[in-house]
Amino acid sequence: MAGHVSDAVIRRLPGYYRHLRELEAMGVMSISSQELGERMNLTPSQIRQDINCFGGFGRQGYGYKVTELKGHIGEILGLDQQHRLIILGAGNIGCAVAQYPTFSREGFKTVALFDTQENKVGRSLGDIPVKHMDTLEEFIRENVVDIAVLALPKRHAQEALHRLYDCGVRAIWNFAPTDLNHPEDMLVVNVHLSDSLQQLSYRMAHRNDP
Amino acid sequence: MAGHVSDAVIRRLPGYYRHLRELEAMGVMSISSQELGERMNLTPSQIRQDINCFGGFGRQGYGYKVTELKGHIGEILGLDQQHRLIILGAGNIGCAVAQYPTFSREGFKTVALFDTQENKVGRSLGDIPVKHMDTLEEFIRENVVDIAVLALPKRHAQEALHRLYDCGVRAIWNFAPTDLNHPEDMLVVNVHLSDSLQQLSYRMAHRNDP
Repeated sequence: MAGHVSDAVIRRLPGYYRHLRELEAMGVMSISSQELGERMNLTPSQIRQDINCFGGFGRQGYGYKVTELKGHIGEILGLDQQHRLIILGAGNIGCAVAQYPTFSREGFKTVALFDTQENKVGRSLGDIPVKHMDTLEEFIRENVVDIAVLALPKRHAQEALHRLYDCGVRAIWNFAPTDLNHPEDMLVVNVHLSDSLQQLSYRMAHRNDP
Repeated sequence: MAGHVSDAVIRRLPGYYRHLRELEAMGVMSISSQELGERMNLTPSQIRQDINCFGGFGRQGYGYKVTELKGHIGEILGLDQQHRLIILGAGNIGCAVAQYPTFSREGFKTVALFDTQENKVGRSLGDIPVKHMDTLEEFIRENVVDIAVLALPKRHAQEALHRLYDCGVRAIWNFAPTDLNHPEDMLVVNVHLSDSLQQLSYRMAHRNDP
C-alpha cells in the first residue's frame, strides 16, 4: 500500500469491502466512482481519493473492476489470511459471534468458546466446543490462537485480558462495556454497543435542528 | 448546545458519557482535562475543545464536575428521555440487546421481541414477551415504539424496514450485515460487527508498519 493511510480511510475500508462483496454477489463486473459513491453515501471524488490512497485501481472512464478491487481491499484488511478466534463467554453475545454468518468466509474461524457455567461447559455450538475457563491457558499452549473475543461480564474482562496476555495472545476484540487497560504490544478493538445506540438517540433528539 | 457540532465530536460523545459514568461510580467528584484525556486517549486540548463545543463546562484550574458534566452530556445524547424499543429477531443478537446491562439505566426500555419461530413466540425473556411477526403492525398501533432493532437475517431486513416505516416507526438500529435503503425521514444507525473485526485484522496485518 502506498504510504501512510489515515484512520478515516481505515475506518471506511470494511465498508468498501462489504459493498464490493454485495456488488460481486449481484454479478456486477465494474462500477464507477459515481455509482459506488451513491451506494456508500460518499462523493465520487472521495471514492477516487480513497482508492488512490490504497494503491490506485481506477482507470479513467472504465470504472473499477469489482472482484479485483474487492480482492485487493481484502488483502489490505488481512482477510486473505486465516485468523483463529477463541471466545470468552458463551452467553448471547459469545454465541452470536460464534455463529455470525460472514465471519468464516472472511477467514475468521472460531475454534473454542470458554465459560464457567456448568450447564454450558462440555457442550458444543455447532462444531465449536465450549470449554471451562480453567483450561484457557492449556488450550492456548496447545493451539494457535490469533484473536480472543471478550464476551464476558465487565467485572471479569480486565482479569481475562491479563491471562490472555500472559499466554501470548496479542489481539482482543472486546464486547465488555468498558475500556480495558492493556500493554502497548496488545491490540484491542472495542465494540461498545451502547455508543452506537446513543448515537441514534442523539440523532433522534436533534433531528429537527437546523 | 452552542452552534454546529461536528460528526467527530458526536462520535466521541458516548465515550465521554461512558467514562464519566465510570468515574462517578468510582466516587470521583471532579476531573481535569489532563486526566480525562489520559483515560480517553485524547489530548487535554482536544478534551477542552470538545467540551467547549457542547456548552462550556470548564472552570480554569478546577477541572470538570463529573456528575454535572455527565448529566449535561446525557441530555445532549437524549438519555434524559425514555426510549421504547422493539426488537425484530429473538436470536442471539436480539436477546443480547434485550438483556444488555446498561441500556435500561440509559432510558432504553425493550417492550417486545418479535420472531416467526414457533418455539420462541409466546415465551418471554425476563418480562419481555416474544410476539409473532404477524402481529407487528397491531402492536405498534397500540403501543408507543420509538426505536426498532433489526436483529433478523439480512434477507428479511429490508422488508421489515418498510413494514416499520409504514406504521410510523422512524428510527432503526440495524444489526443485519447490510446497508438498507430507507426513506429520508427515517434514521438508521448500523452496527456492522464485521467492520469492527476487520479493523482489528487490519491492525494485526500492519502492526509492524513504520
